[in-house]
Amino acid sequence: MTKPAYDDQNVFAKILRGELPCHKIYEDDKTLAFMDIMPRGDGHALVIPKTPSRNIFDIQPQDMADVMATVQKVARAVVKAFEADGATIQQFNEPAGGQVVFHTHVHVIPRFDGVKLRPHTGDMADGDVLGEQAARIREAL
Amino acid sequence: MTKPAYDDQNVFAKILRGELPCHKIYEDDKTLAFMDIMPRGDGHALVIPKTPSRNIFDIQPQDMADVMATVQKVARAVVKAFEADGATIQQFNEPAGGQVVFHTHVHVIPRFDGVKLRPHTGDMADGDVLGEQAARIREAL
Repeated sequence: MTKPAYDDQNVFAKILRGELPCHKIYEDDKTLAFMDIMPRGDGHALVIPKTPSRNIFDIQPQDMADVMATVQKVARAVVKAFEADGATIQQFNEPAGGQVVFHTHVHVIPRFDGVKLRPHTGDMADGDVLGEQAARIREAL
Repeated sequence: MTKPAYDDQNVFAKILRGELPCHKIYEDDKTLAFMDIMPRGDGHALVIPKTPSRNIFDIQPQDMADVMATVQKVARAVVKAFEADGATIQQFNEPAGGQVVFHTHVHVIPRFDGVKLRPHTGDMADGDVLGEQAARIREAL
């Protein structure tokens, strides 16, 4: 497997630098959580490290530990906010693994009994809806 | 969401106690990695903490950090062993989230360009094949 270098022009790097907006859920010294703009279910959130890394293959273990601590907080909050029955956590590495943005990120998707994940169509969700969902999750944190 | 207590009769608890066999890939003080017996792709591995927890909702952050450190090691090894193009990491919580065994576990699945994940049919893989795959991954660690 080729392992390309980190490219700081990816959209999550731009979000971290404030060059692109996001619907923020949570932030601490090490991590940022915000809404996925192409959600596969209501309340679909992303957690990223602030330190640059491409994915599981190059991230420092402590950065991944920090990300997972935030994933736990966000998972509990999305389940509470959306009265969900569970959560699916996904982390994709390289295009073959499903990765589209090349800054390490973890998906946190609230799940409901009998409801499948929506397909990844590339359709963007309504910004007002995402903003309202982010507010609900922040309140549940 | 109801949060049932940890049940120490789950199959991963039995594997940890040596009451059931597994195709072991890696073990340290805190974690165990072994082959998924219902693989969604060649080389599909699981990583579990030795400390009991049901899932993301009750695991201690340090236990999850230890699991993810092993996930990184195993992800690099499966990609090397199977000459994969990437990896998909999944972690399921409660039945709605896709969880079947109620001891925290993380799936590490090598991925190949243009090859989809196999559906979760419940079919068990051939034990000899899994044993040979586990040996290949151990060698790549």
